[in-house]
Amino acid sequence: MSKAAVSIIPLSQLLDGQEADTFALLAAKSEGTTQGGKPFWRVTFRDAGRQVSFPIWQDSAHFDACREHWQVGSCYKLRAIYAETKYGPQLDIRKIRAVTPEDQAAGFDVSSLVPRSKYDSERMFGELLQVARAEVKDAPLSALTVELLTTHKQTLLTLAAARRNHHAFAGGLLEHVLSVVRNAIFLADKYGRDYPEMQPPLARDLVVAGAILHDIGKVQEMAMTASGAEYTAEGELIGHVLLGRDLVREAATRHVVDRETLLRLEHIIVSHQRLPEWGAPKPPMTPEALLVHFADDIDAKFQTALAALAEEGGGEFTAGRNPLGYKIFRGLKQPT
Amino acid sequence: MSKAAVSIIPLSQLLDGQEADTFALLAAKSEGTTQGGKPFWRVTFRDAGRQVSFPIWQDSAHFDACREHWQVGSCYKLRAIYAETKYGPQLDIRKIRAVTPEDQAAGFDVSSLVPRSKYDSERMFGELLQVARAEVKDAPLSALTVELLTTHKQTLLTLAAARRNHHAFAGGLLEHVLSVVRNAIFLADKYGRDYPEMQPPLARDLVVAGAILHDIGKVQEMAMTASGAEYTAEGELIGHVLLGRDLVREAATRHVVDRETLLRLEHIIVSHQRLPEWGAPKPPMTPEALLVHFADDIDAKFQTALAALAEEGGGEFTAGRNPLGYKIFRGLKQPT
Amino acid sequence: MSKAAVSIIPLSQLLDGQEADTFALLAAKSEGTTQGGKPFWRVTFRDAGRQVSFPIWQDSAHFDACREHWQVGSCYKLRAIYAETKYGPQLDIRKIRAVTPEDQAAGFDVSSLVPRSKYDSERMFGELLQVARAEVKDAPLSALTVELLTTHKQTLLTLAAARRNHHAFAGGLLEHVLSVVRNAIFLADKYGRDYPEMQPPLARDLVVAGAILHDIGKVQEMAMTASGAEYTAEGELIGHVLLGRDLVREAATRHVVDRETLLRLEHIIVSHQRLPEWGAPKPPMTPEALLVHFADDIDAKFQTALAALAEEGGGEFTAGRNPLGYKIFRGLKQPT
Amino acid sequence: MSKAAVSIIPLSQLLDGQEADTFALLAAKSEGTTQGGKPFWRVTFRDAGRQVSFPIWQDSAHFDACREHWQVGSCYKLRAIYAETKYGPQLDIRKIRAVTPEDQAAGFDVSSLVPRSKYDSERMFGELLQVARAEVKDAPLSALTVELLTTHKQTLLTLAAARRNHHAFAGGLLEHVLSVVRNAIFLADKYGRDYPEMQPPLARDLVVAGAILHDIGKVQEMAMTASGAEYTAEGELIGHVLLGRDLVREAATRHVVDRETLLRLEHIIVSHQRLPEWGAPKPPMTPEALLVHFADDIDAKFQTALAALAEEGGGEFTAGRNPLGYKIFRGLKQPT
Amino acid sequence: MSKAAVSIIPLSQLLDGQEADTFALLAAKSEGTTQGGKPFWRVTFRDAGRQVSFPIWQDSAHFDACREHWQVGSCYKLRAIYAETKYGPQLDIRKIRAVTPEDQAAGFDVSSLVPRSKYDSERMFGELLQVARAEVKDAPLSALTVELLTTHKQTLLTLAAARRNHHAFAGGLLEHVLSVVRNAIFLADKYGRDYPEMQPPLARDLVVAGAILHDIGKVQEMAMTASGAEYTAEGELIGHVLLGRDLVREAATRHVVDRETLLRLEHIIVSHQRLPEWGAPKPPMTPEALLVHFADDIDAKFQTALAALAEEGGGEFTAGRNPLGYKIFRGLKQPT
Amino acid sequence: MSKAAVSIIPLSQLLDGQEADTFALLAAKSEGTTQGGKPFWRVTFRDAGRQVSFPIWQDSAHFDACREHWQVGSCYKLRAIYAETKYGPQLDIRKIRAVTPEDQAAGFDVSSLVPRSKYDSERMFGELLQVARAEVKDAPLSALTVELLTTHKQTLLTLAAARRNHHAFAGGLLEHVLSVVRNAIFLADKYGRDYPEMQPPLARDLVVAGAILHDIGKVQEMAMTASGAEYTAEGELIGHVLLGRDLVREAATRHVVDRETLLRLEHIIVSHQRLPEWGAPKPPMTPEALLVHFADDIDAKFQTALAALAEEGGGEFTAGRNPLGYKIFRGLKQPT
Repeated sequence: MSKAAVSIIPLSQLLDGQEADTFALLAAKSEGTTQGGKPFWRVTFRDAGRQVSFPIWQDSAHFDACREHWQVGSCYKLRAIYAETKYGPQLDIRKIRAVTPEDQAAGFDVSSLVPRSKYDSERMFGELLQVARAEVKDAPLSALTVELLTTHKQTLLTLAAARRNHHAFAGGLLEHVLSVVRNAIFLADKYGRDYPEMQPPLARDLVVAGAILHDIGKVQEMAMTASGAEYTAEGELIGHVLLGRDLVREAATRHVVDRETLLRLEHIIVSHQRLPEWGAPKPPMTPEALLVHFADDIDAKFQTALAALAEEGGGEFTAGRNPLGYKIFRGLKQPT
Repeated sequence: MSKAAVSIIPLSQLLDGQEADTFALLAAKSEGTTQGGKPFWRVTFRDAGRQVSFPIWQDSAHFDACREHWQVGSCYKLRAIYAETKYGPQLDIRKIRAVTPEDQAAGFDVSSLVPRSKYDSERMFGELLQVARAEVKDAPLSALTVELLTTHKQTLLTLAAARRNHHAFAGGLLEHVLSVVRNAIFLADKYGRDYPEMQPPLARDLVVAGAILHDIGKVQEMAMTASGAEYTAEGELIGHVLLGRDLVREAATRHVVDRETLLRLEHIIVSHQRLPEWGAPKPPMTPEALLVHFADDIDAKFQTALAALAEEGGGEFTAGRNPLGYKIFRGLKQPT
Repeated sequence: MSKAAVSIIPLSQLLDGQEADTFALLAAKSEGTTQGGKPFWRVTFRDAGRQVSFPIWQDSAHFDACREHWQVGSCYKLRAIYAETKYGPQLDIRKIRAVTPEDQAAGFDVSSLVPRSKYDSERMFGELLQVARAEVKDAPLSALTVELLTTHKQTLLTLAAARRNHHAFAGGLLEHVLSVVRNAIFLADKYGRDYPEMQPPLARDLVVAGAILHDIGKVQEMAMTASGAEYTAEGELIGHVLLGRDLVREAATRHVVDRETLLRLEHIIVSHQRLPEWGAPKPPMTPEALLVHFADDIDAKFQTALAALAEEGGGEFTAGRNPLGYKIFRGLKQPT
Repeated sequence: MSKAAVSIIPLSQLLDGQEADTFALLAAKSEGTTQGGKPFWRVTFRDAGRQVSFPIWQDSAHFDACREHWQVGSCYKLRAIYAETKYGPQLDIRKIRAVTPEDQAAGFDVSSLVPRSKYDSERMFGELLQVARAEVKDAPLSALTVELLTTHKQTLLTLAAARRNHHAFAGGLLEHVLSVVRNAIFLADKYGRDYPEMQPPLARDLVVAGAILHDIGKVQEMAMTASGAEYTAEGELIGHVLLGRDLVREAATRHVVDRETLLRLEHIIVSHQRLPEWGAPKPPMTPEALLVHFADDIDAKFQTALAALAEEGGGEFTAGRNPLGYKIFRGLKQPT
Repeated sequence: MSKAAVSIIPLSQLLDGQEADTFALLAAKSEGTTQGGKPFWRVTFRDAGRQVSFPIWQDSAHFDACREHWQVGSCYKLRAIYAETKYGPQLDIRKIRAVTPEDQAAGFDVSSLVPRSKYDSERMFGELLQVARAEVKDAPLSALTVELLTTHKQTLLTLAAARRNHHAFAGGLLEHVLSVVRNAIFLADKYGRDYPEMQPPLARDLVVAGAILHDIGKVQEMAMTASGAEYTAEGELIGHVLLGRDLVREAATRHVVDRETLLRLEHIIVSHQRLPEWGAPKPPMTPEALLVHFADDIDAKFQTALAALAEEGGGEFTAGRNPLGYKIFRGLKQPT
Repeated sequence: MSKAAVSIIPLSQLLDGQEADTFALLAAKSEGTTQGGKPFWRVTFRDAGRQVSFPIWQDSAHFDACREHWQVGSCYKLRAIYAETKYGPQLDIRKIRAVTPEDQAAGFDVSSLVPRSKYDSERMFGELLQVARAEVKDAPLSALTVELLTTHKQTLLTLAAARRNHHAFAGGLLEHVLSVVRNAIFLADKYGRDYPEMQPPLARDLVVAGAILHDIGKVQEMAMTASGAEYTAEGELIGHVLLGRDLVREAATRHVVDRETLLRLEHIIVSHQRLPEWGAPKPPMTPEALLVHFADDIDAKFQTALAALAEEGGGEFTAGRNPLGYKIFRGLKQPT
């Protein structure tokens, strides 16, 4: 097979038996030993849509390179034959090298190798910014919100919403926050309309800004790595609820936000997980905090259920091992 | 003061010191005795917007009539002087008689005497019916939903959503359900749009019908009385979650609803309170059930918070004795 | 060895090293691969009293037949040598074929191949029916109970009481229900006698009928398979408590049961698991419901403890991994 | 009215308006003051079946005697007019004096003045003793049980089973224990018969002795007073579970009970409340302990429900303020 | 009695029947009405050691002044006769006027009128400052701690540790913190000595500084009023745990505290209540945080128990209504 | 290599590749089988500081001896080559024999082969005894405490404080108790000094004796084996809380301890785990019991945290799988 004949095909699009060049991220590498006492390496290559785990035996031409040079988190160009076997998908590697800057011309894009939001991060960020500018009418509050988004833009573009619970993929935090904001705007508009007699009136600005910022502390709680979001020491010891309020308070030193408005905004962040055992130091004691809590909770739980449903499996129900703690119904096997 | 000079004024609009004719419901009557050993009656008259409790002493001209004839739950026409005293509002009754059919010509309307939704029940019912007809595309499911609403229309027009927890006033159930339905339609549209890849696709019909019917069992769980919603024996022993599913299943014998659709609809009702300790025999195991749960929960909790805020009191926080179990923030006393 | 020399012996009676013909159910089959990369199948054959798991290697004469034809849940006639090894009991299969109708003449009985109640299902069912007829004096209530038993007789004859918790074997539900009924009759007689002043008097009929029907919903919650009871979709999404009440209500449309009697019977079913977190939508709010709850709970817990004790193991205590959640005491190693 | 005309009638049998001599226990006495600043005493007299609370005004002829001499817990002979008023039952005392030894000839019996078991304590004790002798076959175990009963006979004859939870009346502990024993014998016989394969076999002796002795520590945990059972310091600080085991262990020093038998008996006492939050240091880890727990729990819960039902009140349900924590159903108001 | 004969005596030292001049704080005032319909005021005067509540009747010479002028929270000089009656202690006021600046010369000291720590606040503050200076060896950490103490000195001198839970009196926070610090120093010294192999070594500085600052947020969570500590809006909505960490972080901008040291100090504050349901957003994840938690918890619980014991009452046990939730043992009535 | 050249070196001091004679305890032995079907044994040898697990293959010269003769819990003298491999540390056994009495001359000491307290048991015991003698001033209480220590001295010298939770090594109980006693003395002295007004005064004697004896029941709850502390049947069925109180009560029959003192001492033992779900039948209802609880709890939790920190691992946090249930912070990877 001549070199020209081998095209570059995404790993997740390779067909059973197909040989091709492909870019892949080395997501895991661990040493093992056969019952006969011989060492081998188990490696996992992946792109955003597929993950392939297989052994590199001692007699493989790649054994030494694997042990010495292959690095978890690095990207590689492989020529390999893809096969779907009863041990799952496998790669028979013919050639392998680390990617080079030149590979970008050939289409290499590291962001295509990790699971990530189906939405474009820049566009999501843009919409969020637009909401912060247009929908938060209180000028200092809007400016504070815009500043926080802008300051943490680079982190927000890639961060997941959690290591495992929900939206656990690159861009997941942004996708989640945007969705929460949309929920929150709907709720603020609806309930503001339904209860015009409220005293004080429902503070739509606070609902919107609170929704945008409720998880902002996650930019310090976690950091993205090749294997997903990992918690920082600050994240473990302090947590995103407190870290997020810090960011808001720090930003507030540069914007003349009304004292009560700031207090209510901080309270939204502090209480957005509602119960102590769910992580909230205080319960939602304002109408606005209640709305943000629900706008958030429904989005997290719904995505968790869908992620469970999206996992492979043929039964009428998913497994019960998901963050919701119970099975999700796929549908009757023999529908009527 | 000549008779002509006394106009008929709603109880809740009487001013301190004003004498007027007014219609009122006798909401409570109980016997007491003074320290000196003399009997008296404590009576409560009310209309939808005000409640007045005061004693009828033994030497009152009305004492015997009160003991013998006045009936809790009956409506009366009173001529009285209204006074706001340190013991709360009081009525000095000059004349009193039970209302007669002729009073309707003079403006008597019993529904104006009990606390009730600020929205018109007929209009709310009409909108709900319209949603059941237009927004539930599956014809048998729509017909089933319409039938259940129609069958229980009279009850729905007046029932509260609960004795105490939330929307505890006449028409409260209808107001709550309509609000839940609007939440549910928003959520179904949004998440259906956001997750087009769902398999099976999000069943908007089920979300809408489930929202309309999630509390339908309350028409058997409670009954309205002059003193608010009271639980029936079926309500105490079986509960609205199971009673509501019964109504759906019974109606389904007259409509060719697909087996899986019916099962999913029943599950929405069964699981809409989410946790066992919150009253759900099963947790929400379908995406549709999750959406209905949240559409419901947010509406109940939000109204509960607002009801607490609407209670009189001058501090920065309400009392903690409300169904949420904690204080709600009114606002800073000295805002900046 | 001539054919005549090989007698048909139950799998559970084979001795170490013995060669014989035996009937067995293929309870499980899964593919594996050796470290050397060769495929093999792991199969589990069993009868009611023994279960044997062993590999079929690639070089076995049965390898292809195993892969292509052997079906989990089917019964086979095997000629094999039974051996007890340190890897547990093993079969060296010499000949194997699916059972044929003719095998019944030679003693084949599928019901002898699954773990099942030590009591005869027909006799248990007969006793239950007799109780429903003779001990429930209220004629319509008796008829309703008899009808439900009769309608579901075939399912009841084989169903387990649970997948794992208690009485997890064929006929287990019947064995459990009969035992609960006996407990309930004792309790109803005793407490009826002890508290003659009760108003209303203890309804013995309700206790008996309630005990018979408390778990009737399990006929729809689960279905027996070769590997034990499996939950249906209705079972997962609705649960046997509600399904059982449905069956009672549906049957009640054909029997003139007094309204309060029916309500109390439904309540017994609804409340028989006592606490929300144990699966009861309502707690037992009648004396009769209390008695049925306890008649049931003690039988389930006692059998669970005995099943744990019956598991092999040599220590003074069983393992703590049983549905009770703690160890059961076997006895002192060195009794005094 | 001549003296001869006034007969001695039990307080609980006096009719409205009737004047009679009666014996009564002064159950409570507390000082109050009228709004006008005048002191009065509120006293409660009772016999086993009725309790009457009323004021002694300052101008009463009994005022000084009441303040100076009447003692809570003492018994009095009263001549009084009994009246049922809207303030509840009242006594208009004409004459009053403390009872004297001579009154016994006239029918005075202090035990008739406190609420007590409807069963004769001596007969209950006798039956319990008989069970301990005849039904516990193991001679030392039987002797130990008999000894403990005999030693604490006087206390057992009058003690309640609890201050409030269940069987809260004189003789209540004996009534409860006897009932538990009967439950336990039934369960031991039934389950011993149903599971002959148990290893070790079900120890019927232990179930019976355990049932008799499970609450024996209450003889030290509480003491009877005129106002019911009161906890001792040992009862509060150590509790009847541990105190009961002490009694058993102490008695075991005089009887050659097999070590394992004693250990299992102690465990029954230690675990009979099943869960830590219900008061059990260890859960029931033997079949015998499970049986005793249930034999006990059902008796306590059933009596609690009946006591709630026996309280006066006209609705379809009792109040929810009873040790079960929820309402008990009395019956439909308008039965069909 | 001539004016000269009336000396100034503290309210808490007045004897039954004594007439004297005394200074007192008006702690409460509320309007009531007699059964006869006449208004009266109920007032409470107190000093640090005694509290006296009594009515001012309509016919009192002070009635109008009371209604119009007396203010809760103000201090008064009274000439009155003190009496211990069955309605509790009473004052018969002869003369009353608000205190004037000149009264200080006569011994008036407002701080003597509220319940407060038995220790001198200035001395406690001084000791705390000394510990911050001498026992925290890390210079920036010491300086940060000193600064926070100094900044909030005035508040610390008077604040209680809680409204009700423990040390609920003026100076209570300071008394509690100082005691916690002493516990913490002991624990840090002991465990540092016992585990010299710890890696990293136990950070004694952090334990000491953490103990000093663990409750520093209470200076913003509560404010002292005449009726005790009251929560601020920030206190309710954010809470002292977060507010305290804010103060530390804000101070840290002025001191070059090592990043890890600051993180560990913040974590001590965040986790010092240990469990989410006890108010800790994170559990104590460092050895230092564990020590501070226990140093704090034991002091709070011990003082709570002693406060319960110090309440009047004659039984062997206190009431169970205290923040511990159970009775405390006073001692046997008849000790052996 | 001549015999003389091989010195005896502790297993835990062997270097990679070093050949030596060493003494070791056989801590575990289990049979396995290779994928190829060949049997092997997996054995674990250890001394106090190191544990080595490795296979004995079928072709090993030691295979038969291992199967037939090597006994778990026995000590052996090995000549072996120690190697650190990727499968963990390994031993290549050249010679092996059971230790003989003569080996003691060569330095064999079985106590050096199990993990144990870093403190000398005899010295710890001596200090504890000294405290019991000198610090408990009440003579009978002191004598009782001394007697219990002395009676159980041999067990105390080696017992762990728990199988897993804390101080899970030989001598661990003694180390823990001594530390608790020191905490308790500090607390008793401090709080006795701080609250001189306590009535009754803080009973320092009880705090000290209670601390010494709080866990004394563990001498019957557990027994040391070669693989650590194992629970006895009494331990499982009754538990150390009750067993410890037994020991105290039994000893009290020989010492004239005041009744209230004994009751308070028993209560300290009964309540020292504070909450029912933590194992306390009663909560600490005396000041002394509160102090002992905290003196105990802090020591257990602190050692648990340190044990987690001492486990190998390179991250910023330990794993969360320790008895505290959460991660412990090791320190920042890149400290500032």
